Amino acid sequence: MAATNTHTFQAPKGTRDFYPPDMAVRRHLESVWREVSINHGFEEVDGPTFEHLDLYTVKSGPGIVSELFSFRRAGGDTDYALRPEFTPTLARMVAASAHALPKPIKWFCIPNFFRAERPQRGRLREFFQWNADIVGDDSPAADAEVIALTIGILEGLDLTPNDVRVKISHRGGIARVLLRYGFQGDRLLDAFDLLDSLDKTSLDEFKAKALTLGLSDVQWNDFREWLGLAARANQPVLTMPGAPPEISRFHPQTFDLLELEPLHGELESRGISHWCDYKPSLARGLAYYTGTVFEVHETSGKERAIAGGGRYDNLVELFGGPSTPAVGIAMGDVVIRLMLEERGLLEPAEAYLPRPDLFVIDVTEDQALSAKLIADLRRENLHVRHSYRATKNVGKLLGEAGKTRARLAVILGKELERGVVGLKNLESGEQEEVQLDALLETVRATLHTMKK
Amino acid sequence: MAATNTHTFQAPKGTRDFYPPDMAVRRHLESVWREVSINHGFEEVDGPTFEHLDLYTVKSGPGIVSELFSFRRAGGDTDYALRPEFTPTLARMVAASAHALPKPIKWFCIPNFFRAERPQRGRLREFFQWNADIVGDDSPAADAEVIALTIGILEGLDLTPNDVRVKISHRGGIARVLLRYGFQGDRLLDAFDLLDSLDKTSLDEFKAKALTLGLSDVQWNDFREWLGLAARANQPVLTMPGAPPEISRFHPQTFDLLELEPLHGELESRGISHWCDYKPSLARGLAYYTGTVFEVHETSGKERAIAGGGRYDNLVELFGGPSTPAVGIAMGDVVIRLMLEERGLLEPAEAYLPRPDLFVIDVTEDQALSAKLIADLRRENLHVRHSYRATKNVGKLLGEAGKTRARLAVILGKELERGVVGLKNLESGEQEEVQLDALLETVRATLHTMKK
Repeated sequence: MAATNTHTFQAPKGTRDFYPPDMAVRRHLESVWREVSINHGFEEVDGPTFEHLDLYTVKSGPGIVSELFSFRRAGGDTDYALRPEFTPTLARMVAASAHALPKPIKWFCIPNFFRAERPQRGRLREFFQWNADIVGDDSPAADAEVIALTIGILEGLDLTPNDVRVKISHRGGIARVLLRYGFQGDRLLDAFDLLDSLDKTSLDEFKAKALTLGLSDVQWNDFREWLGLAARANQPVLTMPGAPPEISRFHPQTFDLLELEPLHGELESRGISHWCDYKPSLARGLAYYTGTVFEVHETSGKERAIAGGGRYDNLVELFGGPSTPAVGIAMGDVVIRLMLEERGLLEPAEAYLPRPDLFVIDVTEDQALSAKLIADLRRENLHVRHSYRATKNVGKLLGEAGKTRARLAVILGKELERGVVGLKNLESGEQEEVQLDALLETVRATLHTMKK
Repeated sequence: MAATNTHTFQAPKGTRDFYPPDMAVRRHLESVWREVSINHGFEEVDGPTFEHLDLYTVKSGPGIVSELFSFRRAGGDTDYALRPEFTPTLARMVAASAHALPKPIKWFCIPNFFRAERPQRGRLREFFQWNADIVGDDSPAADAEVIALTIGILEGLDLTPNDVRVKISHRGGIARVLLRYGFQGDRLLDAFDLLDSLDKTSLDEFKAKALTLGLSDVQWNDFREWLGLAARANQPVLTMPGAPPEISRFHPQTFDLLELEPLHGELESRGISHWCDYKPSLARGLAYYTGTVFEVHETSGKERAIAGGGRYDNLVELFGGPSTPAVGIAMGDVVIRLMLEERGLLEPAEAYLPRPDLFVIDVTEDQALSAKLIADLRRENLHVRHSYRATKNVGKLLGEAGKTRARLAVILGKELERGVVGLKNLESGEQEEVQLDALLETVRATLHTMKK
């Protein structure tokens, strides 16, 4: 014991202890993620918490690799890493069973992920993240389905298009813009990374990097003007070819997102285009995106992206599977929770704790019956609590029952001599006498009316 | 890519990929764990997936420490380890908030754990494990509550006392037996470890170790006789003082489990003593147990323990909190699943996949309505699927609907001209025509009757 530091007694930096109220909020978020994903026809999967290290070094941009927690087994020679994201695992799992799985594959998962970066607001070393992917369908309808699912989740969390926007862009359109302004064709991935860093970089630094990627000073001035227009993230930037001129804020030739026209139609037919903006400066940093990319942002622009994803048509093949198109999205638990709290869209954490059906109060002398009664009621799938205090004051015990938010209280007192117990509805305050052998039935019937 | 080994494309040894049917079985198990725990008044918690390494080196026996996956952040100087069990995290969390938390604390959790040992049947490097603990109550009633919860879960998984037995012992009673036969008082923890290894060790090896712990050859012979009696794990060993002689198979002076008499009364009052046997050779290996210990075993004795736990009254204090009694149990997902499968107590995995409420079949020419209809129905919290195939053959599409186990099919055909769609009950085969604007209401009413 002498050698123990006090840090032993704290959660590691950037990780969290989930006491019951916090855990209940996490489960609430997870249940919205899960329920909406299932309603949209997605099936849940999971993979290992750690993978072979080279699953990540093979395909991710440097943005991921420097942030890994990696390790070996004592005496072993295999390098592992805690998963920083799900897409490589998904691509590996699809590649391994590609021929056996009917297409399209629609999968979601809600695992934890790990990044060895400095913890800061909205970024932790361990976090939970919902992922949803459609694999084996290269149509804009699949892109729209992933976006529709995401919007379903935002709605399930009581958010509206006034709170959050889905920003959409396309790697093909961005590539044409970048080439037009003078970026080198063989440095496009770096140019995507640079564009992705726009909000986190000073203009001087941004310019210096742009010049190393092929731009002349003259080209930089033109590109800077484009950036100024394209980066107005808080305005709807409807620049579809064919969009009515009065809502086209910028000239379509400037914002070349031709590829998104069919997606726009799909979003309209699902009744969700009013959640979406087209933002041509959105590139997203990861190397593996090949087409449509999207992010969900708060309208205030204050927090980091709430969710992000896109199309990655080459990844399954990279992991040894057949050529397979894919599109997916991910939403972490940290930023969305900060945002819901700030907007007052979460109840106090205690409100998410499971409510007891029954609180059993036993003020008889020997309390011989209650242990058996409680055991029997729990065996009937009822959530039953009781006091651990010695008091036989019914008022105090009813107060304790109220604090647990129990729906009903069963009171075992001297009426037991007549084979009768008290049943109190803790919402209405009504109390009745019930024959002990009719208790279960009465409890069920009362709960049925209360839960409606 | 050139440097990539094929192992990159497989899950690491001892870990699992959960494709949808496997994931559905895991969720089934987790939902039984969760629901029964909540019904028994336990609240869910979680901690970090990795902890400071010395959280484990401080208190666990050598059985744990040699099995850790440990690591540092690149460039960091702090040692971390993937959690091999929950108890140290729980003790740390309780110690940190001991004064703020009302007693008794009743917590459960369902995290994943990691052991860097050789994978084998029933033992993996990553597994899921349910834990439940009562902290701040030193009564036999708390021991009984943890055992009652465990039995509630076994019942929830359709197991009976003919399938599994709860084996119960007590460190105090075992200590007296060991001292009586000649084990050294300062080597008792090693003697517990040795006793715990009984089923995995040859008798010669066992004897050799026993002699190093203080036994003479004569004492060994006596002790060996005791072992032979005590180890009959498949027989009820009711040795309580006061137990009727006809069910006391062994002489009470031989099996000194005096401390368990009050627990036996608590189990009887809850109506669960017929699930339980007293097994005096059960010591359990971990160093931190201080009183009652228990394990759940298959009656055949074939598999490893299904669950195990006990009382650990010193651990919270060891982590800097006030002196706090505690008792807990844990059940992993691997052994219980093997056992349920072997006994035919699991449905085919597909049966645990969520059933769609509706399968939408659109055989109209332009399919203009169905994208919107599907989006609207999902927004109403219905689980809605549709085909991705080009066919307009209603029979084939109904076949596809059947494979998803959907409850209802909505058929959009030429009746749409009259504002009407077909609604087919896929369980009864009945089909009716429904006005499009009454569809949602009719679907809800029909599902309500079907789900009962």
